Amino acid sequence: MYTSETFIRVRYGETDQMGYVYYGNYAMYYEVGRVESLRKLGLTYKELEDMGVMMPVLENKSKFLSAALYDDHLRVMTTIRDKPGVRIKFEYDIFNGEGRLIHQGETTLAFVDKKTGRPSRPPQVFQNVLKPYFG
Amino acid sequence: MYTSETFIRVRYGETDQMGYVYYGNYAMYYEVGRVESLRKLGLTYKELEDMGVMMPVLENKSKFLSAALYDDHLRVMTTIRDKPGVRIKFEYDIFNGEGRLIHQGETTLAFVDKKTGRPSRPPQVFQNVLKPYFG
Amino acid sequence: MYTSETFIRVRYGETDQMGYVYYGNYAMYYEVGRVESLRKLGLTYKELEDMGVMMPVLENKSKFLSAALYDDHLRVMTTIRDKPGVRIKFEYDIFNGEGRLIHQGETTLAFVDKKTGRPSRPPQVFQNVLKPYFG
Amino acid sequence: MYTSETFIRVRYGETDQMGYVYYGNYAMYYEVGRVESLRKLGLTYKELEDMGVMMPVLENKSKFLSAALYDDHLRVMTTIRDKPGVRIKFEYDIFNGEGRLIHQGETTLAFVDKKTGRPSRPPQVFQNVLKPYFG
Repeated sequence: MYTSETFIRVRYGETDQMGYVYYGNYAMYYEVGRVESLRKLGLTYKELEDMGVMMPVLENKSKFLSAALYDDHLRVMTTIRDKPGVRIKFEYDIFNGEGRLIHQGETTLAFVDKKTGRPSRPPQVFQNVLKPYFG
Repeated sequence: MYTSETFIRVRYGETDQMGYVYYGNYAMYYEVGRVESLRKLGLTYKELEDMGVMMPVLENKSKFLSAALYDDHLRVMTTIRDKPGVRIKFEYDIFNGEGRLIHQGETTLAFVDKKTGRPSRPPQVFQNVLKPYFG
Repeated sequence: MYTSETFIRVRYGETDQMGYVYYGNYAMYYEVGRVESLRKLGLTYKELEDMGVMMPVLENKSKFLSAALYDDHLRVMTTIRDKPGVRIKFEYDIFNGEGRLIHQGETTLAFVDKKTGRPSRPPQVFQNVLKPYFG
Repeated sequence: MYTSETFIRVRYGETDQMGYVYYGNYAMYYEVGRVESLRKLGLTYKELEDMGVMMPVLENKSKFLSAALYDDHLRVMTTIRDKPGVRIKFEYDIFNGEGRLIHQGETTLAFVDKKTGRPSRPPQVFQNVLKPYFG
């Protein structure tokens, strides 16, 4: 299992007239969680694309426990629970500035070869950096 | 059961560098599906808010079957399968211009009294317009 | 001069906690105005890209006269005032449901050859459809 | 004159199929620039709203010199050149990771009293923190 912590400041344009973060904007927060969790392993999603790997999203699930508010400094805990195969699942727990769990989400993505458009295994470098966490 | 049809044109700003609609933008398409399905019943979400009812999202789920592309003219079928209580669930089937099912989603929302911030039953007018569909 | 009319329904996710359309979302409305104005000439921006032409934005200006509100049915008047060369300028007047002018904008875009990355003249088909308006 | 520096990481969802940051997303970067420049003065926009002050945007201008790309770590220099009255103007210079100036923008906002909806002078605390920069 691999877990990583990232912080996100809620932008004004991400709120809606209810005064909450619009429900569609959490997907962007998940993306930041995923990308920064990989960066901490020394890997960028940008490099993966440059290697010819795309990672389209297959499934996404969200539970809205409490609202995130403008200017909240959110703590996003991103977890990879299972060793990635042709798919990888990221889970997110989002806490507001007061340390309260306000949101949970999960995203399943595929590894796809850019040239063939077909599912593929994760690139070797990806497998290497995650190996220590999935003995 | 109540089902309604809406069309959405994919905007350039909704795509990402993969050339697909960014996965976070479907939530906005769901919103359009919900809002237009209510409008066809003679009800606007705006009026609901003016009556003092908020409808925050509790849960959201998405399955990405195929990519939606720039300028696609999407057909969004929005369904309310069960009679709404303090919660209401909307389901969406999204088809691309060639008639292919490319995406499925569902959103559960609560009815909340704006003043008290507490869950409430749907306003009477809401119950009335849906009654014919949930004999 | 060429002018074209398009309608846009304001989405909930486009508002912010001030209760107005977030100022950054007008650029998307401009895009819809541009794209639909071309479509009415029998031309899609998608086709232009398929022909190997990109149209990156060079400049953008916006005047916010009054707020656009949730669910407003906006009327977007899009105008090409001058015959396009290697650049093209679109102007927009946006009216709310009550017919009041609430916003003005303009965008200058370049025609760029996708392969060379260099500025180019508009494709012949583009020049042809606009010719009647710029005798 | 007051100038402040902020960094923004480009998100995947902010790119479009051209592979660039969508032109409408810079307004959000400006917002981050403004908000963080105020925070460095010990002032949050959130507090201003809590004091009963709204700051709707009146005008916005953008020059796109070069594209911002996915995962770029942008440096946003935000400047208030003139002492704010009932209006305040922010200017932005955005540099990419290689230190190249890629974008320039400016936004004029009004100070508005939330209760009356009328233009007002900046709150005293706002004037105080800026005073040292506009002797």
